[in-house]
Amino acid sequence: MSKKNLAILLRARMRSSNHSAKSPLSQFPKEIPSNPQETHSGDHVLRNSSDLDTRGRGYDVVRDTMHSAISASKTGVSDITLNDFQEGYSSLSLEDRGKLLLALAKEYDVNREQVRELIKQYLGLETPSSDDALSSVFYRIEWNLRHALKPTYETFFERLNTHPGGLRFLSILRADLLSILTKENMPALRTLDSYLKEKLGMWLSPATLELHQITWDDPASLLEKIVAYEAVHPISNLLDLKRRLGIGRRCFGYFHPSIPGEPLIFIEVALMETVAQTIQEVLWDNPPIPENQATCALFYSISSTQPGLAGINLGKFLIKRVITVVKKEMPHVSTFATLSPIPGYMQWLLSKLSSQSRFAEEEQSNPTSSTFSEKVLLPEEEQALMSQSDDSSSGSNGMEVLLNLLSQKNCDWATSPRIPPVLEPILMRLCARYLLQEKKRGKALDSVANFHLQNGAMVERINWMADRSEKGIHQSGGIMVNYVYRLENIEDYAQSYFGSGQIHASPGIHSRL
Amino acid sequence: MSKKNLAILLRARMRSSNHSAKSPLSQFPKEIPSNPQETHSGDHVLRNSSDLDTRGRGYDVVRDTMHSAISASKTGVSDITLNDFQEGYSSLSLEDRGKLLLALAKEYDVNREQVRELIKQYLGLETPSSDDALSSVFYRIEWNLRHALKPTYETFFERLNTHPGGLRFLSILRADLLSILTKENMPALRTLDSYLKEKLGMWLSPATLELHQITWDDPASLLEKIVAYEAVHPISNLLDLKRRLGIGRRCFGYFHPSIPGEPLIFIEVALMETVAQTIQEVLWDNPPIPENQATCALFYSISSTQPGLAGINLGKFLIKRVITVVKKEMPHVSTFATLSPIPGYMQWLLSKLSSQSRFAEEEQSNPTSSTFSEKVLLPEEEQALMSQSDDSSSGSNGMEVLLNLLSQKNCDWATSPRIPPVLEPILMRLCARYLLQEKKRGKALDSVANFHLQNGAMVERINWMADRSEKGIHQSGGIMVNYVYRLENIEDYAQSYFGSGQIHASPGIHSRL
Repeated sequence: MSKKNLAILLRARMRSSNHSAKSPLSQFPKEIPSNPQETHSGDHVLRNSSDLDTRGRGYDVVRDTMHSAISASKTGVSDITLNDFQEGYSSLSLEDRGKLLLALAKEYDVNREQVRELIKQYLGLETPSSDDALSSVFYRIEWNLRHALKPTYETFFERLNTHPGGLRFLSILRADLLSILTKENMPALRTLDSYLKEKLGMWLSPATLELHQITWDDPASLLEKIVAYEAVHPISNLLDLKRRLGIGRRCFGYFHPSIPGEPLIFIEVALMETVAQTIQEVLWDNPPIPENQATCALFYSISSTQPGLAGINLGKFLIKRVITVVKKEMPHVSTFATLSPIPGYMQWLLSKLSSQSRFAEEEQSNPTSSTFSEKVLLPEEEQALMSQSDDSSSGSNGMEVLLNLLSQKNCDWATSPRIPPVLEPILMRLCARYLLQEKKRGKALDSVANFHLQNGAMVERINWMADRSEKGIHQSGGIMVNYVYRLENIEDYAQSYFGSGQIHASPGIHSRL
Repeated sequence: MSKKNLAILLRARMRSSNHSAKSPLSQFPKEIPSNPQETHSGDHVLRNSSDLDTRGRGYDVVRDTMHSAISASKTGVSDITLNDFQEGYSSLSLEDRGKLLLALAKEYDVNREQVRELIKQYLGLETPSSDDALSSVFYRIEWNLRHALKPTYETFFERLNTHPGGLRFLSILRADLLSILTKENMPALRTLDSYLKEKLGMWLSPATLELHQITWDDPASLLEKIVAYEAVHPISNLLDLKRRLGIGRRCFGYFHPSIPGEPLIFIEVALMETVAQTIQEVLWDNPPIPENQATCALFYSISSTQPGLAGINLGKFLIKRVITVVKKEMPHVSTFATLSPIPGYMQWLLSKLSSQSRFAEEEQSNPTSSTFSEKVLLPEEEQALMSQSDDSSSGSNGMEVLLNLLSQKNCDWATSPRIPPVLEPILMRLCARYLLQEKKRGKALDSVANFHLQNGAMVERINWMADRSEKGIHQSGGIMVNYVYRLENIEDYAQSYFGSGQIHASPGIHSRL
């Protein structure tokens, strides 16, 4: 790798910190100053007001281009028009983008006159019983009605998708849309998003995604994406990146032909002798074991890269395909496991403790008042916590003490010498309960658990202080979980999870409940 | 290439002749004897009746598998079920496949009760004027109505598409469907096909297709596809194939990630000093010119490979992308042209001559009878043809003589020493008229002309006796046409063709009219 490429990579890391800013605008080359009025000299004010003019005209021009692109005949829309639109849109401020998207949602919506006319015709026809000429008319009207219910903007999305760079553009457009919707919930925009999301999900079906191994020999422009988008265990420096692509490690990405040079989602794999219990072992073991001694492939990080593809399940089949590839390259690897975060655990626990300690208080004053109360803590846990209570974490009952401990700023409890041994059995038991028993619509409440369970994994083991990073302590009390994929069970487990929500787990986990 | 691979290639050529049989059944490994009753010994009869039993059971099993695959929950359908269905379907006879597809079309159709219920709700609501809570309800019901109008089998297609090999399977399924529909036009099946075609068109959008150069170094399994599917100028032997991939030649294919090892469409390019006037020059020039002397890239063949993708425009962008690739590799190439067949010319001309000579006869007996008659031939052409009339091609007027000459079996006229010089000016003039003036819905009547014109080409030149093969004489009197792509005009020409149907042509062609 040349010095120049290294410099690019280092910059990439810096840029990725900026990414944490909410607006996806930063993905565009031309940024509009967010507050052009903040200037001091008269000269500047003058220049800026002319900038504003240009912006005003810019919006109208982009809107006109959008109109041309939408109203051209089916196949007659030119690449130039679509290019102009993409470039014009990219030069707009987020505010103007919002205005434009609202215009798109409202003015290029469903043709409702046509829909009502077709509904009238449709209701006038009998449902066909045999295959005759009449049924042919019925099918045609039904087809027409279905197509009339398609918003005009959906056609526009389809046109953009067939245009070079269009799919990537649409993913950016959706990121804008999502960012606007977090501020204001407008039904028309919400509907626009539903249709766009549906389309993107269709275009990005697993059938169109290609699995590639990402290595140190890949272009810097690709590797900088890995640095920028690694969402689970941030890549701290170049050496760290090189290690994650080097001996004893693998990195695979799903690519789409029309978003070249950038994985939509990528997964990092460590080859190990045993299933790792802490992320520190994985990230900092040095040197890695020789690959021929590996018996376990550990998936330790999965990151998606496009905020505009939120809610679209890109990981489907990814794990299965990676297992196939690794197994082929290294038949001696027999265990496929993950070391996964439990992103929803603390949030669930804090909310549960908060509501239950309130119920407990009410119950004390009026023993029959609440029917929602449940025993969160076992008697010995209650006792241990109460004997722990001091100035920094007092409380009238065990739940309150625990809540106060876990709510300390900077997660101070985790670095205290006294507290972790007291909390370990409690947090581990409640974590097993959270993973195995807390459901949402019949599926695991935890999003990562749900992801692996629907891929056919089982819950193998939970590990205390497996991620001591601030983020790890904050989201799951530092606990991480190993999901295991057993080749012979993947299909069955996925099936029974889908069918009845059954979560397969090892005896070790069950014994904690 | 190993001897084994060569043998495979040779077999491929033979197999491709079998392909000309109409039924796409031959694409499956397991073939069912088309007529198992045709046996002689008692033993055979016994075995065959048990075969029939298996087939009968086979149909029911496949139908049950189809039901499981369709009725499983959204994400709960297992790969095993979909695999079983694909394999089961492939083992059915074409007749049973037809039965199964009809069951699919009729029993997994639109849920019409739900549609009527939603229509009732929809009609009860006002079209929203502002973005309020009510509009949110309206959008939701409209969305639900649109989705309720989706036939259940469409979901089944989507499931198959996400399954490995599913897209290829669906293309085979559609080939069966089209073959069944040529025999019997059933509205339910016709509708099934419309939905499947729409889906396939979406999944195979240009955004998902990858352009690859196909070379002699590619696997034999890919090259045999080129041999089997070359539709314009059949590849006669291995040497011919090698030449088409060798020096002075290029071959590019569009590939889809989920149909690996097989181009969906491919284009063959010859590098030449001038724009070739006959296909013989292209196919048989020996040796080709050194590539650095080439100034012209000639597209001499475009073939699509999947009968199940009929009607889906896969060639869109193909030419443009190939031009970009060639231009990058060889900046000295300045002309991009085709040497194209005119597949509809003779069919149009024969039908025109037949109807017009009938009108002419009627007019003779009753001069005011027909308002549809037109002068197809110029006076000097009429004269030349009448003086040509003899036993084998007599007629009461020039059109009848021409009709009789062109209808001779084996296209005998083309090998006669006398006739071609007489026909040349006539057929060339009428060919210019056919290409430039005969329209269908405002677009060129000839399908190949329409393809290149919508890609932004112009009609440059027509060439007499440019394809002396039986097929060439039969379909276009041996005439071929050069379309030329001028980089600076591609966008404009495509636009004006789309907008107003304007066909750009060289002065040389215009002067023939």
